[in-house]
Amino acid sequence: MNIRRLADHLNISIGTVSRALNNRPGVHPETLEKVLKAATELGYVANQSGRSLRRGATNTIGFVIETGHPAHQAGDQFFYVVLDAMNLYLAEQRYDLVILPCHSADDPVEFLSRVIARGIVDALVMTATRRVDHRIAQLAKSKLPFMTLGRSETPGNYSWIDLDFEGVARRSVQEAVKLGHRRIAVGLPDNDVALGYHYKAGYLKGLAEAGIPVDESLLIRVPTSELGGFSLGKQVAGMAGQPTALLLCSEVTAAGVYAAFAEMGIEAGRDISVVAFRENPLMRFLNPAPACFRLDLDALGTRLGETVLDLLSPDEEIGRRRGEIVPLTFVQGKSLQPPRNPA
Amino acid sequence: MNIRRLADHLNISIGTVSRALNNRPGVHPETLEKVLKAATELGYVANQSGRSLRRGATNTIGFVIETGHPAHQAGDQFFYVVLDAMNLYLAEQRYDLVILPCHSADDPVEFLSRVIARGIVDALVMTATRRVDHRIAQLAKSKLPFMTLGRSETPGNYSWIDLDFEGVARRSVQEAVKLGHRRIAVGLPDNDVALGYHYKAGYLKGLAEAGIPVDESLLIRVPTSELGGFSLGKQVAGMAGQPTALLLCSEVTAAGVYAAFAEMGIEAGRDISVVAFRENPLMRFLNPAPACFRLDLDALGTRLGETVLDLLSPDEEIGRRRGEIVPLTFVQGKSLQPPRNPA
Repeated sequence: MNIRRLADHLNISIGTVSRALNNRPGVHPETLEKVLKAATELGYVANQSGRSLRRGATNTIGFVIETGHPAHQAGDQFFYVVLDAMNLYLAEQRYDLVILPCHSADDPVEFLSRVIARGIVDALVMTATRRVDHRIAQLAKSKLPFMTLGRSETPGNYSWIDLDFEGVARRSVQEAVKLGHRRIAVGLPDNDVALGYHYKAGYLKGLAEAGIPVDESLLIRVPTSELGGFSLGKQVAGMAGQPTALLLCSEVTAAGVYAAFAEMGIEAGRDISVVAFRENPLMRFLNPAPACFRLDLDALGTRLGETVLDLLSPDEEIGRRRGEIVPLTFVQGKSLQPPRNPA
Repeated sequence: MNIRRLADHLNISIGTVSRALNNRPGVHPETLEKVLKAATELGYVANQSGRSLRRGATNTIGFVIETGHPAHQAGDQFFYVVLDAMNLYLAEQRYDLVILPCHSADDPVEFLSRVIARGIVDALVMTATRRVDHRIAQLAKSKLPFMTLGRSETPGNYSWIDLDFEGVARRSVQEAVKLGHRRIAVGLPDNDVALGYHYKAGYLKGLAEAGIPVDESLLIRVPTSELGGFSLGKQVAGMAGQPTALLLCSEVTAAGVYAAFAEMGIEAGRDISVVAFRENPLMRFLNPAPACFRLDLDALGTRLGETVLDLLSPDEEIGRRRGEIVPLTFVQGKSLQPPRNPA
């Protein structure tokens, strides 16, 4: 679908369609919406030739982030390190990287329509993947190759890389059970981000393996942020039938949990054990040191670069879409101790 | 300077020059270097017409960050919030924002040559500004309008916005002196980033006003990171003639300073007072709460958006290049107490 056919289909001038697709002023909001909707549905691509797209029309890879939600995926310095390694790999292959920020008041689907329409990248890496992700359906209709950081249940012709949230949760339960814990709480995201489902699945699997019945009151949903962690810590510490252990699906909540515990005179490990998610530099300043999981961010960034360039390969086998789960390594920490009163 | 004249000047084919400027494969490294150097020196711009550039050839603003150095400017969630507000403002004006990451192994000047050459943005916001910044000289030669977040001593036709590092340092000294401190240490960046000079200037001004002689051993240079803060805390606590107060020019070092103090049985405020830089969400989890400075990140982001679009205005007065210093508000905290043994 090229711009002329899109204009014909809409019965709007090419000039207006072009202005709408390129986010230029002077287009009536209703017209803008109509153009972007049709462009998405009809699979419009800025650079019409699939061949030239394949060979790399721009030699640029786009990395889509959502600002205003610092911890959607992992927050803080995660992206700085991952992007650096990915950028380095892409540069070696003579590709440039641009980060495309979708701001918090924007509609992610409309944002993506503009990105697709403007044809500024050869392929996209999507982040903050949802379990049901409309952006995937939208991208699948366009001819723009893409991959996601994080799995989704929305089908489409794309590759993905995900951290092993399920494996981490299951292992966290196993480590806690090994020490005698049976009343194990878990902090989960309060939104539809896919990692929450995988983390929960691993948690439930771990409980089932240990023959521990599920207590729904121990599944606590909070924003993935420092303040969310603070609320989580308060809730867990204040529960009737206090849990003996708490598992975290994100590292950004850890400092908040520790602060809430400190306010209530509770010490991680001694009173309530904590297993955090990804080890990060700030964690070494939490006392006692959190049990957590190690992830090689450099390797992840490089792998993202390899995977997104594979999408562009004319070689059918290399270009085949694939999914990959990245394992994390358990790191002992004093925040995980046997419960004071084993069940 | 257009591509044909650049090719003529270099006596290289237009095709090769184009491939070099667009970072495409098959260009000999020496040729690449020659082309980029000439493009920079001769002020090549991708879109030749100054008029069309002025009107916005791409309707896109570029924001240059350096990855691999998480805390060059401010680190962590600073950029997420600032970029969100800036992006929102730009979207209202129908401009898109792209973030252009320069990776740690890349040469910032060469990186910028590619950005300029590819003509993908109408204007640039530069970050991690150095006191002497070669990128400014380079941009000044190109026709691409730009502004910097952070001042520089390198002259050029650009606008800038800077946080009031000097004012913050001076006020920090004043607050400490008011309580009786005279032996006041300061943590400074270990690189050429401009903020370090301004912070130091404010510190020296504050000392001079209080009639306190400068003790060079109290000016401590560390990396602007959590680990840098840890090293800083250890050094200060371990000094013969321990300082009674410590001022921080970045918020990312605070957690490290607190951790080092904890290891050495030192409490912020009671034993050594601490005045941190920017208040951030993590700080409320440091105990005792750090004295620090409040910055409205939303307002800063919006101001960046306004300032960069002003560069593109055909109105001479609006388009005039200007500098702006953003003040921060002092926030009391228990980390700042009178010294135990006032001088």
